Amino acid sequence: MDFAKEVQAKTEAINELIEGFLPEEEKYPAKVIEAMNYSIRGGGKRIRPMLMHETAELFGGAGVAVEYFMAAIEMIHTYSLVHDDLPCMDDDEYRRGRKTTHAVYGEAIATLAGDALLNYAAETALGAFDSDCDKYLVGKAVRILFNKSGIYGMIGGQTADIVSEGLKSEEITAELIEYIHLKKTAALIEASMMVGGILAGADKVQINALEKIGRNVGIAFQIQDDILDVTGNFEELGKPVGSDEKNHKVTYVSLHGLDKAKADVEALSKEATVLLHTMEGDNPFLEQLLLSMIDRKK
Amino acid sequence: MDFAKEVQAKTEAINELIEGFLPEEEKYPAKVIEAMNYSIRGGGKRIRPMLMHETAELFGGAGVAVEYFMAAIEMIHTYSLVHDDLPCMDDDEYRRGRKTTHAVYGEAIATLAGDALLNYAAETALGAFDSDCDKYLVGKAVRILFNKSGIYGMIGGQTADIVSEGLKSEEITAELIEYIHLKKTAALIEASMMVGGILAGADKVQINALEKIGRNVGIAFQIQDDILDVTGNFEELGKPVGSDEKNHKVTYVSLHGLDKAKADVEALSKEATVLLHTMEGDNPFLEQLLLSMIDRKK
Repeated sequence: MDFAKEVQAKTEAINELIEGFLPEEEKYPAKVIEAMNYSIRGGGKRIRPMLMHETAELFGGAGVAVEYFMAAIEMIHTYSLVHDDLPCMDDDEYRRGRKTTHAVYGEAIATLAGDALLNYAAETALGAFDSDCDKYLVGKAVRILFNKSGIYGMIGGQTADIVSEGLKSEEITAELIEYIHLKKTAALIEASMMVGGILAGADKVQINALEKIGRNVGIAFQIQDDILDVTGNFEELGKPVGSDEKNHKVTYVSLHGLDKAKADVEALSKEATVLLHTMEGDNPFLEQLLLSMIDRKK
Repeated sequence: MDFAKEVQAKTEAINELIEGFLPEEEKYPAKVIEAMNYSIRGGGKRIRPMLMHETAELFGGAGVAVEYFMAAIEMIHTYSLVHDDLPCMDDDEYRRGRKTTHAVYGEAIATLAGDALLNYAAETALGAFDSDCDKYLVGKAVRILFNKSGIYGMIGGQTADIVSEGLKSEEITAELIEYIHLKKTAALIEASMMVGGILAGADKVQINALEKIGRNVGIAFQIQDDILDVTGNFEELGKPVGSDEKNHKVTYVSLHGLDKAKADVEALSKEATVLLHTMEGDNPFLEQLLLSMIDRKK
């Protein structure tokens, strides 16, 4: 099977798995549950649960336990999008060609649906205590998941991103851009790989390596985003090329130049691959998946 | 010591305890951490952590473990207030005589601060795995906490409350009002008592009784709120008497009449006390605290 088809098949399997974890609609909070499920069903490639599953497979798999976490991390990712789209944040009416949650259900229900998804992510991940996985590992995985989604992870990145919008160009440092890339995007990629590894019994050295791989891939993904804004073409990107430059947006490329940006992506990618090869197991699909996140044209 | 002074002393001790669990301010997400801490420091009587602590004491105490949960439940209660005050929800500029979080930090940061408090509540409660408390009990307590705060608990009640604002008076049933009282208020009271009991080693029958006590007290608290709106006086309430009636608001009193409302509060309160007396231990302060939540003039 070719890679693109394999990704598609795995995405569909994950969609089915997530569907099984969605809350049942009850009489009175029906509205918020409807909005939660609408948001989750918005799709995407389910890259985080996929990375989590494939990382667990690299260490021989983690049985049913990892499924709870695959659903939970997608709920966390989804809640962050629902709140990010709100009028007081990015104010987006469409996402992936579909009305955003607040555009359909109103701001109040969208705010509650985001809260509800984060809360339900905790409930779902904690459900893994019912699996036959070692309780110590489940506890460790839940803690990593929430640590990487909170103020020292994803929410920290979101905050820095919001705050940076109020800054003058000259106030935006390379350090700040790196922090945003690291926290806003890389944190959940790190969590995906670490949780997969933890549940499958990877040791401490391996978990640290997984964190580093996730970090490299997440940061390279974001730099690539900035590169494509300069070098991509309209058909592939689906948005005007050079829009960052036109908006005088400070990016990795505007700070470091295109050559260094490309070289850094290359180096981050190389290091991730080398680290992946230090692992005992072997999962060629995982390697391809990681590289596809970096080496992309759109 | 008289009861009011004892409550005050305990509130101060809890404030100090919570202070020790607040996140340290880091460079880039400083804004959101500042907003989280501002929200938490807004105060109140800390009734939920107090109930949790006193319930644990009833069963001989729960050591350090309960402290993580006392801080966590106050973070959950606080995030719900921060989001509730947002312009798209109740649009309140003041709470307890102090500017609300969005009035100080803006809507975007207030939304993120609410998310961050909920996420940090999970991180904080999970910290109890580091205590010497039985890991099984900690896991059980975290699950109860998040179940009672989610769509089948507090968020469910918030949703029904928001949805009910768009309904005509004749569409608001006694069942709906009861659901809102039960979920919006009672759920976290139930969680407070259950978590305290679980961590201190209470058995299943006792945990069920604690849930029922919390439910009765939570519901009675809300009915009493509706009663006071009719019978209270301006000085004690600090707001105009009869404002529900003027706003044609459907309340427990408008649905069932003042006499039945008073009788129900009495019956709920009586049942809670009887159940409390079935417990092996004895904590007179807890009993007084529960009754003070029901039998109040403001």
